[in-house]
Amino acid sequence: MLSKNQLKHIRKLNKKKYRQETGLFVAEGEKVVRELLNSGWKAHEIYATHAPQDIPHTPIKQSLLNSVSHLFTASPILAIFHMPKYKQTPIGGHGFSIALDSIADPGNLGTIIRLCDWFGIKNIYCSPNTVDCFNPKVVQSTMGSIARVQCHYTDLVSLVHHCESEVYAATLNGNSHYEQTFSSNGLLVMGSESHGIGEELLKKIRNRVTIPAFSTDTGPESLNVANATAILLNEIFRP
Amino acid sequence: MLSKNQLKHIRKLNKKKYRQETGLFVAEGEKVVRELLNSGWKAHEIYATHAPQDIPHTPIKQSLLNSVSHLFTASPILAIFHMPKYKQTPIGGHGFSIALDSIADPGNLGTIIRLCDWFGIKNIYCSPNTVDCFNPKVVQSTMGSIARVQCHYTDLVSLVHHCESEVYAATLNGNSHYEQTFSSNGLLVMGSESHGIGEELLKKIRNRVTIPAFSTDTGPESLNVANATAILLNEIFRP
Repeated sequence: MLSKNQLKHIRKLNKKKYRQETGLFVAEGEKVVRELLNSGWKAHEIYATHAPQDIPHTPIKQSLLNSVSHLFTASPILAIFHMPKYKQTPIGGHGFSIALDSIADPGNLGTIIRLCDWFGIKNIYCSPNTVDCFNPKVVQSTMGSIARVQCHYTDLVSLVHHCESEVYAATLNGNSHYEQTFSSNGLLVMGSESHGIGEELLKKIRNRVTIPAFSTDTGPESLNVANATAILLNEIFRP
Repeated sequence: MLSKNQLKHIRKLNKKKYRQETGLFVAEGEKVVRELLNSGWKAHEIYATHAPQDIPHTPIKQSLLNSVSHLFTASPILAIFHMPKYKQTPIGGHGFSIALDSIADPGNLGTIIRLCDWFGIKNIYCSPNTVDCFNPKVVQSTMGSIARVQCHYTDLVSLVHHCESEVYAATLNGNSHYEQTFSSNGLLVMGSESHGIGEELLKKIRNRVTIPAFSTDTGPESLNVANATAILLNEIFRP
């Protein structure tokens, strides 16, 4: 049986500040929890209404789990993990990396982490105002890829300034990505759907790449940022 | 001031059955509401805490709006629209279309509708168990593209059986999409991330296409279905 304080503690892990104070984060769902455990991440507590026998856990009632879950629909397993400590990996000579400027939606960041995992990208550089990668909704939508892809929160203007490999910005008025040649090492910078890449950052990037729209009448103004990232990574990794 | 019955009515529009009975659906957010209005869709009611003067609306308190919103974070505008009546468009000679088998996540369907809009695809064929395109979360995540892309709910086995153009199935063990030639008219079938395309349906499709994974160690099992659709459409529409 969980005490009121324990329940409050789990709920508060929804807040970035509290995660940073405690060094803990929440992962929900069997797939995500299993992938984190398999990758050697250290669980602090695992609560479950029912879970496979190979995952040691504290039983919890469905109603209690619902009350602490950070998801719209609670999953049968909720685990609290210790956050890993990342060293910032320098860019250049390490294949391709991604930088995300002001990405606010947790589902988008989670999906981009999963995409990077698919393409073998190990590092994502995020502007400090990008949603925290240990936000419960981000963790859930990575489907476990957070165990293999590191997010580093840093000033992107300075990162791009010191980057020794080619930098590419996804914009709405660049070269068609179908015609763009990409170097084998590089950095792809993606901005938010509504505001694009910040002005100061964009000024530092010469290569501007655009995914042309094919709709003939008044179509959408932009693609979802995770979909745009998928399309560009698909081009960058074209054999 | 809204009556208790009116509030209940809006909340119930979360249910597919009630939407079908009433012929109404909910759209939230200024962008989506504006796009639907601009496309000539008929609003039944528009409620807003504050909205631009050019959108006629009934004022509503924030607390009431929160209580009826179908979104995690309520937007300042919630509108109820009349559902359009679609005629099923025959496939073949109409460029490319998409078929979705058992796509349950509203955000994924909404993003795929937005993607189709970007690529100029007018019709999506959905298996009857695919999430309803007038689900409030689907509508919201289309960002207005639902005004330009039609979803038809139909038996996909029969659809593929009668399809006169080439049909392509996205699977985990087909030809690399980088090497696949796509015809200019055709149908791309996407399945759910966890279960793929149903067996009976898959048996009817000869062309199997796969997005190869690039991660060298144990990577993710699959891509998010909207991202996979983005990557494949990008190949299909390659100039």
